[in-house]
Amino acid sequence: MRLVSIDDVHRAAHAVGDVAIRTPLLACEWAEGRLWLKPENLQLTGSFKIRGAYNAIAALDPDRRRAGVITYSSGNHGQAVAYAARAFEAPCAVVMNDDAPAVKVEAVARLGAEVVPVPLAERVAVAEGLALDRGYALVPPFAHPDVIAGQGTVGLEIMAGGPTPDVVLVPVGGGGLASGVATAVKAVRPSTAVIGVEPELAADAAESLSSGVLTTWPAARTSRTIADGLRPTGLSELTFAHLHERLDGIVTVTDDQIRAAVARLAREAHLVAEPSGAVAVAAYLFQRDQLPDGPTVAVISGGNIDPRLLADVLTADPM
Amino acid sequence: MRLVSIDDVHRAAHAVGDVAIRTPLLACEWAEGRLWLKPENLQLTGSFKIRGAYNAIAALDPDRRRAGVITYSSGNHGQAVAYAARAFEAPCAVVMNDDAPAVKVEAVARLGAEVVPVPLAERVAVAEGLALDRGYALVPPFAHPDVIAGQGTVGLEIMAGGPTPDVVLVPVGGGGLASGVATAVKAVRPSTAVIGVEPELAADAAESLSSGVLTTWPAARTSRTIADGLRPTGLSELTFAHLHERLDGIVTVTDDQIRAAVARLAREAHLVAEPSGAVAVAAYLFQRDQLPDGPTVAVISGGNIDPRLLADVLTADPM
Repeated sequence: MRLVSIDDVHRAAHAVGDVAIRTPLLACEWAEGRLWLKPENLQLTGSFKIRGAYNAIAALDPDRRRAGVITYSSGNHGQAVAYAARAFEAPCAVVMNDDAPAVKVEAVARLGAEVVPVPLAERVAVAEGLALDRGYALVPPFAHPDVIAGQGTVGLEIMAGGPTPDVVLVPVGGGGLASGVATAVKAVRPSTAVIGVEPELAADAAESLSSGVLTTWPAARTSRTIADGLRPTGLSELTFAHLHERLDGIVTVTDDQIRAAVARLAREAHLVAEPSGAVAVAAYLFQRDQLPDGPTVAVISGGNIDPRLLADVLTADPM
Repeated sequence: MRLVSIDDVHRAAHAVGDVAIRTPLLACEWAEGRLWLKPENLQLTGSFKIRGAYNAIAALDPDRRRAGVITYSSGNHGQAVAYAARAFEAPCAVVMNDDAPAVKVEAVARLGAEVVPVPLAERVAVAEGLALDRGYALVPPFAHPDVIAGQGTVGLEIMAGGPTPDVVLVPVGGGGLASGVATAVKAVRPSTAVIGVEPELAADAAESLSSGVLTTWPAARTSRTIADGLRPTGLSELTFAHLHERLDGIVTVTDDQIRAAVARLAREAHLVAEPSGAVAVAAYLFQRDQLPDGPTVAVISGGNIDPRLLADVLTADPM
C-alpha cells in the first residue's frame, strides 16, 4: 500500500492555500508547561475538514469534477465537501442520516448542496450507488490519499516557524487528520513525537494499534462518548497503515476530561471547541504523565458544538 | 497637540512584534455580506491591550523601566501591563478598585504584579502618588502616545494583505484602540472608513464627537451597560483629538444587540468575545443601514467574559 508522502502534502498545501485559513499557533499562558494551540475550529466551515475535501476535489480531472461530487457525512466533512464543491461550481450531494440535527442539515443546504436523508446504516451504500448512477466523484471522509494529504497541511503549518514542538497531539476518529499530520511532522522533524488522542469510550484506534490488528468497535458502543465527531467509524486500512507506520503513540481521555477541556478552552483561550476538537487539550491537561516532555502543540480539530452543551459545561463545576 | 503618526505605529509594530500574536483575519461565511473578524480576544492576556502596554514599556529608558511601572485598571489593561512588565523583568504595581472580581485580581497577581486595592474613585490619585513615591513609570490605559501607537498595530495588520476593507469597525471606550487603528488605516488607505462603535448606554464619545466638545458621562450612568470594558471613563483630550481628526463616524448599539453578537460569535465563529469586544460585530449585524457598504473588518477587542454570562447568552432566545 502506498502511503502519502511529504511531497503529496506540499502539493496539497499549494492547492488549499487558495481557500483554507492559515490558523495561527496560539501560546497558552494559562496552561502549566509549554502549550500552543492550532485552532482549526476557526477554519472555514468550523473544522480542518475543508483542507482534505478541497484538496481531493481540486485533484479531480476538471471534466469529472464538473459532473459533480458526493459524500456521506452528518458532520463536519459534509459541510467541507459542500463548501469546496461550491468553490469549484460543481454539483454536490451529501448523504446524511435521516435523524441528523436540523442545524447540520441546514448548514449543508445553505452551502448549496443537495441533502439526501437515509437511515444511518445505508449512508455509504446510498452514496456509492448515487455516485455510480450520476457519475459523481465520491469524496470519502478519510480513506483517500488526497484527503489525508490535505489534512496533513495542518502538520506542515505547525512545523513552519514559531515554536519547535517536541510533541504534537492530534485527535483520532477515522484517522485522516492524524495520518496527515504524522506524515508532515515526522518528515520535517523526526524527533518530534506525534501522539494520537481518542475518547476512552471510542478507543478502537488505540486497540488496533496496540494489537497490530485493525479493529472496529460497534456504533452502539462508541455512541456513548460526548465526542460525536470521533464516534462513527473505525480506522480504514489506509489510515491504519499510516498510523501504524508514523504515529508515536496514542492516549485516551475520559468524557469528563473532554468536558473540562471544552470549558477551559472557552474560559482561558477564548475558543469554542466541540468535544471531539478538545480531546488533544484534554490529554495535555489530564494525562501529561503519559506524554513526552517538551514544547507541545495540541490540534483543536473543530468548533461545531451545540450551544446548549457549551452552556452546560461552562456552568458545571470545574475539574 | 501632536498626534500619533503612522511612523510611530510602524515603530510600535517593530517593538510589539516580539511578543504580540499576529491575529489572523477570519472570513465569516455565516454573516450576510462580506465580513472579516480581527480576533484580538485570542491575543496574549485576552485583549489588544498588550500591544499598547508593551510598546509603552519598551519605549521607557531602561533605567527608568528597571525602577518599575504602575497603572490603574480593573480589567484588561492591568493584565497587559503586568504581562509586559514581567517580560522586561520590571517591578509592577496595578491599582485596582477594591470591589474588582476575584478572578481579575488573581489574573494580575498570577502575572507577578503587586495588586493595590483602593476605592474606585481613588484609583488614579493613588497610582499617581505611588508613581511619584516609588519612582515608578505610570502607563495609563489610553491617554498616552506610546499606548495609542501600540494599539495602532491592530490597524496596520488589518491593512497588510488579505481583504482590502472599505470599512473598519472598532470599539470605543477610552478611545486608545480607535485612535491607533484610525491612525494606521487612514494613513495606509484614506478611502477606507473607520467607524467607532459604542454601547448606547455609554455613548459619551458619540456625544463628544457630534457636539465637538469633550463630554464625560457619569459612571453611575455608564455602569448600566453590559459592556464593562467600555464603561469606566470618557475619552481623554488626546484620544478625542485623534478621533475628531481621523474617525469617519460613530454608531451605537443596544445591550440586547451586544448580547446577540456575543452569542453569534460563539455559535458561528467559534470565538468567545466579551461584551465590549462584540460591539463592532453587533453594529455590523444590526446597524448596517448606518454603515458604508463594502468589505468590512470588525475588531473583536477582547474575550475576558464571565463564563456564567456566556452560558446565559448562549441559552437565551436569539434575536
